[in-house]
Amino acid sequence: MLDSRIIDQLRQIVGKDQVSAEKADLICYSYDATQQKFMPDVVVHPQTSEQISRIMRLANTEKVPVFPRGAGSGFTGGSLPTKGGIVLTTERMDKILEIDEENLVAVVQPGVVTEQFQIAVEKVGLFYPPDPASLKFSTLGGNVAECAGGPRCVKYGVTKDYILGLEVVTPTGDIITTGGPTMKGVVGYDLTKLMCGSEGTLGIVTRIVIKLLPLPEAKKTMLVLFDSIDGAAQAVSAIVRNKIIPTTLEFMDGRTLDCVKQATGLQVPDAARAVLIIEVDGDREFLDKQARRIADIIQPLGVVETRIAETPEESEALWQIRRSVSASLRKVNPDKYNEDICVPRSKVPEMIRKVDEISDRYGVPIVNFGHAGDGNIHVNIMIDKKIPGEQEKAEKAIKEVFEGALALGGTMSGEHGIGIAKAPYIPLEITPETALYMKTLKKALDPNNILNPGKIFLD
Amino acid sequence: MLDSRIIDQLRQIVGKDQVSAEKADLICYSYDATQQKFMPDVVVHPQTSEQISRIMRLANTEKVPVFPRGAGSGFTGGSLPTKGGIVLTTERMDKILEIDEENLVAVVQPGVVTEQFQIAVEKVGLFYPPDPASLKFSTLGGNVAECAGGPRCVKYGVTKDYILGLEVVTPTGDIITTGGPTMKGVVGYDLTKLMCGSEGTLGIVTRIVIKLLPLPEAKKTMLVLFDSIDGAAQAVSAIVRNKIIPTTLEFMDGRTLDCVKQATGLQVPDAARAVLIIEVDGDREFLDKQARRIADIIQPLGVVETRIAETPEESEALWQIRRSVSASLRKVNPDKYNEDICVPRSKVPEMIRKVDEISDRYGVPIVNFGHAGDGNIHVNIMIDKKIPGEQEKAEKAIKEVFEGALALGGTMSGEHGIGIAKAPYIPLEITPETALYMKTLKKALDPNNILNPGKIFLD
Repeated sequence: MLDSRIIDQLRQIVGKDQVSAEKADLICYSYDATQQKFMPDVVVHPQTSEQISRIMRLANTEKVPVFPRGAGSGFTGGSLPTKGGIVLTTERMDKILEIDEENLVAVVQPGVVTEQFQIAVEKVGLFYPPDPASLKFSTLGGNVAECAGGPRCVKYGVTKDYILGLEVVTPTGDIITTGGPTMKGVVGYDLTKLMCGSEGTLGIVTRIVIKLLPLPEAKKTMLVLFDSIDGAAQAVSAIVRNKIIPTTLEFMDGRTLDCVKQATGLQVPDAARAVLIIEVDGDREFLDKQARRIADIIQPLGVVETRIAETPEESEALWQIRRSVSASLRKVNPDKYNEDICVPRSKVPEMIRKVDEISDRYGVPIVNFGHAGDGNIHVNIMIDKKIPGEQEKAEKAIKEVFEGALALGGTMSGEHGIGIAKAPYIPLEITPETALYMKTLKKALDPNNILNPGKIFLD
Repeated sequence: MLDSRIIDQLRQIVGKDQVSAEKADLICYSYDATQQKFMPDVVVHPQTSEQISRIMRLANTEKVPVFPRGAGSGFTGGSLPTKGGIVLTTERMDKILEIDEENLVAVVQPGVVTEQFQIAVEKVGLFYPPDPASLKFSTLGGNVAECAGGPRCVKYGVTKDYILGLEVVTPTGDIITTGGPTMKGVVGYDLTKLMCGSEGTLGIVTRIVIKLLPLPEAKKTMLVLFDSIDGAAQAVSAIVRNKIIPTTLEFMDGRTLDCVKQATGLQVPDAARAVLIIEVDGDREFLDKQARRIADIIQPLGVVETRIAETPEESEALWQIRRSVSASLRKVNPDKYNEDICVPRSKVPEMIRKVDEISDRYGVPIVNFGHAGDGNIHVNIMIDKKIPGEQEKAEKAIKEVFEGALALGGTMSGEHGIGIAKAPYIPLEITPETALYMKTLKKALDPNNILNPGKIFLD
């Protein structure tokens, strides 16, 4: 329990209505998408960077940990208050401050919901590409902290590629600004990109300067069924080799397809053992030509069937198949470990074979889908935790999946981050020397270890 | 002078032929493109990261500063050995280690010359876009250290956008690896981007993992003469508003055009007071359509004349006009201060008017050209240093140019960096709090201040 004196001081900083130590409120801020729970002592809702600065100074004086939080939609526990203390949520800092149509730049507060921002810029013909699956509720501040990805990243890159500048409150309570609204800038260290993906451990983002693109005129979706995952993977390489970078190149393996068929009654030929959903965007007239070219390129690679959407409704129907995956999986088993390894694109088939082998060996169902275009595979280990021994098997399987990805030149996480969920596995990927460099940096910037302690590297 | 014992130890580390303390050799490593000179005590040519690690450990033990150097083509003194000590050049680490055509990734040593690398990847149908003006001699290691830009950055982004991973020797001599060959990765802090543009102060890059693109099928160049800089600037905005992002959008102001006319005898109508060189790339068939569309879009904006290249030779002739700028300027005055401010794209005309006003007020010729598409203006202050008082006037003018850019939401440098040339102006752009964050980081990672001391922030 936090001293009531500290809670009083927090009330003085942000106002009475913006602080709660009521149990019912605390519970709301105790979990994230990992379904793990840690109770904070108090939740504060600051509305300005000055308030956040004062909170951080107080926390340093009193040695109370602070856990910044967006929507709490993260998959790895990055916002969980693992040591109690203060949950600092930016959800009430939710204003779009500027959309500069001339310079294709926007300025927002961190609590703006990703999809709301996309809708706002699309209204004026602009485009913010990053599209994490959580975009209906995740916030841009959280997206920056985790460096969120999504299906469109194949063509357009990840969150950090769109962040031009930030205002940040440092772990010790200074307010700093990084980058700015220009397309280029090399004055001092690139703290903007350092913050992106630092999981709320190096600073609290209070304002975000975002680069926008012109909204593509149109898009075209196609769903292609292949007789093997190798055919689908070769198709991805062949498309890229032909100088086409589609907006999305999503895949599902045979096991995922089985789940979807079973759950939704989707009618596909029995020969189909892998799916690619390919979307291209750009000039309307050019798209038809491009879709036909893609169909020609991939035809020899074991295509069982190709469906090209001719209307937005047909496109939506194709995407609905992809969206039904998560719900379908729940019918396999109630508990899901959702990992997101990333390997060089050409290694996807080999990785899927490894995962299938691990799945068979441990007798735990594992289904794979995700972003084939950038080698980012969502590996879903489906178990029933109520069955004794299942959790242990899943954990062993996860470790082997990570080791398998690393052996192929890959990484443990393409977009979900480390948080606490993957922190125990960090030594598999990061050498002691590299870890020391990172920890030295964190320690220098947060000498009292106040800001989101115990994330990425377990204390 | 460095103790001969230390020079002997360096010889033991890298071999006798890879160390020189001869004056003639030292002179070769005493200058860069700023034309300033600082003599080092010794030059070493390591060939492995292990050797560099040992050099850094020795330097820390002996408290000798180390100045890493690529080709020495920087404009801001980032590689100058301002405190004597060791110049560590990576020019003999010049191997392209891998070009992975399947995954569009290359791995190189830091001493590979930028253009040589571009030629090598283009041979296999791939593309490395960053194109600093120095590309015929600058090295990729130097490009990473400075985060080099170039004309193609409007469409394709800067060096850091292509760096996926690095091997780095830290200031204390550890060998660390950052990132990797995957398109996504969020494990730990993004040290890769932190190194990019850190001007050799946070680590010495020893291996670079580079993202490549498919080589565009074709390109098309057009040169457009406008009756005012405002027309040219409006043209840039209008093109982008029409969802076209050209590969390059280079501009020259009226004063630059005057220099080129005078020096080369270029024939253009007297009404021409600004030039845009626009290049688009991509699908051959699509390009003609796009070039015509651009011509239509910009026609109402004061176009005096449009020249569209129909052949590669005609394209080359148009680019020759742009390339003649630097030589033409030398005819105005012998000494050039080449600044590279960057402002939001829409502010370019206002910035040019400010610069013209500063030029007139101080009576020093200033000509502007550069990358209009991303607001990156090369401001060239032309003086004759032999004339008493000229240098002081130039320095006052530069400060006002920087202040002008910052007042428009811009930055002092889009691609040249800070080094020592702009270090005195850092407080204009970076707040004391932000500078403290950066300095804390440097101090923690380089406790003895051995690696490139006195750069970015004057000691």
